[in-house]
Amino acid sequence: MNDTHATDRFAEFRALHRPGAPLVLPNAWDHASAAALVAAGFRAVGTTSLGVAAAAGKPDATGDTRAETLALARGLSRLDALVSVDIEGGFGGGPDEVGALAAELAALGVVGVNLEDGRPDGSLARPEEQCALIRAVKAAAPALFLNARTDTYWLPGHAAETEARALAYQEAGADGLFVPGLQDRPALAGLVSVLRVPLNVLYSPGGASVPELAGLGVGRVSTGSLLFRTALHGAVAAARAVAEGTPLAVDGVPGYAEADRLAEAFAPGPEV
Amino acid sequence: MNDTHATDRFAEFRALHRPGAPLVLPNAWDHASAAALVAAGFRAVGTTSLGVAAAAGKPDATGDTRAETLALARGLSRLDALVSVDIEGGFGGGPDEVGALAAELAALGVVGVNLEDGRPDGSLARPEEQCALIRAVKAAAPALFLNARTDTYWLPGHAAETEARALAYQEAGADGLFVPGLQDRPALAGLVSVLRVPLNVLYSPGGASVPELAGLGVGRVSTGSLLFRTALHGAVAAARAVAEGTPLAVDGVPGYAEADRLAEAFAPGPEV
Repeated sequence: MNDTHATDRFAEFRALHRPGAPLVLPNAWDHASAAALVAAGFRAVGTTSLGVAAAAGKPDATGDTRAETLALARGLSRLDALVSVDIEGGFGGGPDEVGALAAELAALGVVGVNLEDGRPDGSLARPEEQCALIRAVKAAAPALFLNARTDTYWLPGHAAETEARALAYQEAGADGLFVPGLQDRPALAGLVSVLRVPLNVLYSPGGASVPELAGLGVGRVSTGSLLFRTALHGAVAAARAVAEGTPLAVDGVPGYAEADRLAEAFAPGPEV
Repeated sequence: MNDTHATDRFAEFRALHRPGAPLVLPNAWDHASAAALVAAGFRAVGTTSLGVAAAAGKPDATGDTRAETLALARGLSRLDALVSVDIEGGFGGGPDEVGALAAELAALGVVGVNLEDGRPDGSLARPEEQCALIRAVKAAAPALFLNARTDTYWLPGHAAETEARALAYQEAGADGLFVPGLQDRPALAGLVSVLRVPLNVLYSPGGASVPELAGLGVGRVSTGSLLFRTALHGAVAAARAVAEGTPLAVDGVPGYAEADRLAEAFAPGPEV
């Protein structure tokens, strides 16, 4: 980590979750994307498991990217930024393993994790099983902001379980709740009203804007894989334009030297 | 590699370098960007050393990304595509080490390499030193397309050496010549006229288009770090738009499932 006041960093990240003035947390997938977001003024950056997996040529949410996630976290902890890491469902570990992973991340200087109840086989973990993971993380790394994600809106047939799961995860110690796919404004406001911890919403183009979500009492808005997918599209569109001889949109694209300087944002540290 | 006819792949890549109808070679920096370019119809893909380095949080051209480059090459060799790898100046190795690296890449199924005469300290290698590396690569991996890059236009004060270096590298066995930064049309046409191997031009927005470069007799047009930098910019611009509540350009951006399916493009292989 970059400073000697780790406790202050955890507190700073926690304090950014303000219902009514939510933390906008962009999600990076490699060192360059994280450094570019920090250079653009974002104080806190998350990771996207899809991006991390795809960058490594692997599918998302199969529990197969523990090593890549940890290597990325080790590198990002050398940024002067607040970093939260997506650890999927814990990469297949039980409470002991997931607690140890959380402790390792916290020791690196990572300030938060996302832990989801979706499982690689497309099922949802039983609530008591997920609560055991949550308790283990909080016992092993009490200062770490544990954002508990429930995939009730992503997996068909589970939406009715959302409130019960959210309350159970909160009771188990979650510091925030994340329900990707939940876009309905009354349902969002309803969930905010029953939770005492901040609600995290996944930004969706065409859905509610950040000011609207702020008005609903949301405490965090994250971008998930959107930035990664936008980046990929930009690269492919530029390649096509070159090949076809059509004009390229290069306004604002950093030059070689500017992109190369992103590496300077990483404090010296052990090899990643 | 994905097929049993490696020789055919080398020949196929070589044949794509047609003066007058150049190969447009987009440059990837990770598995996802390469797979997305292949999915968009590009049969051949290069790598960008800036992108590979920055994705790992390192500066470009310091010879420090040999491991990352090799790991990426190992993964990309599992794509059904023709892959050429940027090995900078050989990562500090002498003829034996660089020859061994080339042989290792060829054995993976990589069809080409870029080898540059710029050195991490900002100097140019002596021509005889660079020719020794070129001869070593061709001796160790005769089928590999060796694109010899000279940095005479990137390092100040060396432009006058371009033709002599190009001819020396061709004589040493280079299969193609690459002069990034050379944009002047008469100079390009002049260099084409004295070389018997294809000339590779770095595409520059606002410079000559691919049809123009074709008319000058260029055999390959590559994009260098442009796609990587465009991707970064797209991600940061999207994050800013979300934070500021302004509209996002999402036309053509792949959805979650489409991005996740990119991993299917990689044939089963050893862990990377």
